[in-house]
Amino acid sequence: MRKLVAMQQTLGSLGEDRVLERILSHIDPGDHVSVGPGDDAAVSTLPGPTVTTTDMLVEESDFLREWLDPYRLGIKAAAQNISDIYAMGATPHGLLMSLSAPSDTHIDVIEEFTRGLNDEAQRAGAAIIGGDLSTGGLITIAITAVGYLRTEPILRSGARPNDGVFLAGTVGHAAAGLDLLFAGHRLGNSDTDTFIETQLAPRPDYTTATRLPGWAHAGIDASDGLSGDLGKVARKSGVDIELDPEAIAGLAQQVLPAARILGDPDLALTWVLHGGEDHGYLVTGPADMAPVGLTRIGTCVTGTGKLTLDGTDIQPGAFTHFSEAQ
Amino acid sequence: MRKLVAMQQTLGSLGEDRVLERILSHIDPGDHVSVGPGDDAAVSTLPGPTVTTTDMLVEESDFLREWLDPYRLGIKAAAQNISDIYAMGATPHGLLMSLSAPSDTHIDVIEEFTRGLNDEAQRAGAAIIGGDLSTGGLITIAITAVGYLRTEPILRSGARPNDGVFLAGTVGHAAAGLDLLFAGHRLGNSDTDTFIETQLAPRPDYTTATRLPGWAHAGIDASDGLSGDLGKVARKSGVDIELDPEAIAGLAQQVLPAARILGDPDLALTWVLHGGEDHGYLVTGPADMAPVGLTRIGTCVTGTGKLTLDGTDIQPGAFTHFSEAQ
Repeated sequence: MRKLVAMQQTLGSLGEDRVLERILSHIDPGDHVSVGPGDDAAVSTLPGPTVTTTDMLVEESDFLREWLDPYRLGIKAAAQNISDIYAMGATPHGLLMSLSAPSDTHIDVIEEFTRGLNDEAQRAGAAIIGGDLSTGGLITIAITAVGYLRTEPILRSGARPNDGVFLAGTVGHAAAGLDLLFAGHRLGNSDTDTFIETQLAPRPDYTTATRLPGWAHAGIDASDGLSGDLGKVARKSGVDIELDPEAIAGLAQQVLPAARILGDPDLALTWVLHGGEDHGYLVTGPADMAPVGLTRIGTCVTGTGKLTLDGTDIQPGAFTHFSEAQ
Repeated sequence: MRKLVAMQQTLGSLGEDRVLERILSHIDPGDHVSVGPGDDAAVSTLPGPTVTTTDMLVEESDFLREWLDPYRLGIKAAAQNISDIYAMGATPHGLLMSLSAPSDTHIDVIEEFTRGLNDEAQRAGAAIIGGDLSTGGLITIAITAVGYLRTEPILRSGARPNDGVFLAGTVGHAAAGLDLLFAGHRLGNSDTDTFIETQLAPRPDYTTATRLPGWAHAGIDASDGLSGDLGKVARKSGVDIELDPEAIAGLAQQVLPAARILGDPDLALTWVLHGGEDHGYLVTGPADMAPVGLTRIGTCVTGTGKLTLDGTDIQPGAFTHFSEAQ
């Protein structure tokens, strides 16, 4: 009986220490790490102020078991946290990984998740520096990203009248992917892969993100959607943001093929305005000179914190947690 | 209908932004915090290398809904993370709080949890600096603690032959409390309150912990129990640790009343050797001169990583996650 359980290679049969050993085999060492995983805490000797952020992924709320692709989930968990570090104008350093999963979860699921997390961290020059494992009925992941600043932080409150408003990366692709998944589409079809891939494993534009510090006046990780996130920048900065109708139409054009597949072309604009999870960067800065990789999508004007398109207020329409009452 | 939902004050009815607002009202500001909660990430200007650690608490695995006391759960979530910072010889700075709860959870539960987390952070001179909220079927909490070093870190691997082995705080009280809870005991009885309180809301000895840097050769947060945690120090340091039978008997004496209430006096030694979650500190250092607040419980001798009591090997018997196969 004991042997059979061990052969199943579940978290329950292996025990915490052996699971940790397997996880650690997928982790590359990082820079500025004085003490890595394996003691009570990690020690990092960072060349600037410390930047920290945390984000969760919860089964049934953020992903469904039937779509579960643990490697891609690892990428997503890393990307959504690393993006918050870049959005502050900071440099990613390390990730701490808290993971709870049912005890009958196969070790391969955890190893693939760790591989994805590690690979995406590496893409940003960061490393996994610590973690915790637990058991629970649903797969729940909480990642904390640690970074450091070389310049002043980029805040949500720094936008000024006459700033250009720019996007690095995409918006609406992950939302299109989500609706495609709900409609039964899966990876393996060239018409829909790019959208589903962005939902399952977003790959934010880190290269452009590294060009933002020193130039951007304000910035935010577009995790909740353009309407919600640019709305926050407008309110916190005390400016109005006027979206450029042509630029928004261009973004909608990118996701139109997915909207057509689902039989509702109007979905394209909804995804672009309100869809989150691509983890593009929304930034404001001098309108006449901007880092390569940014797309101009609007302008900051003197105002009171409104976001408008063609003179119409755009209210936040993003998915927010706990929002059963909408 | 809408109004009724709002009156219920659940996470689902309030929405994420209003829940965050309520949470933030319970958070005190911290030192060295340049950017606190409310942007993409927190910025901390720390006076030494950055120390980070993360720990989860998962409903059904770490606590049961029927015992749920959210204020005390907040204390526990803070304490178990802050203890890892102190165990490294570091100074606590901030906590990031990731919390997932069912959408029908009342806002009071989250507010009381935050109050407990904040109060315990304050007791250690730390502050809540960020967080994330999500929905899920089980209450799941992942806390990341951030601290900084003023001296070299205290590692698990630093114990030397002839070091004294010391304890700050208690061991076995939280395990006694857990068995009392499982047997149906609850707070409100002077014979059992101290044990149940330690299980629900451990209050580690931070004062003594601040005296460890510069003196301790090795240290660990006793979260998994004396057998497991001192065993790690012995193995990582390449020494044997001989427990002092009289000291261990003295520790067992402290929890004997709880063992008697449960009708099995032998439980006392089991709790002391294998019970975790008191978050005492197990440290080694010069045997002849030690910080006030420490209790001598053993000696390091030349060896190969064994932990012994009266010449008998003590194997780890702690509760570990995923250990269904024991």
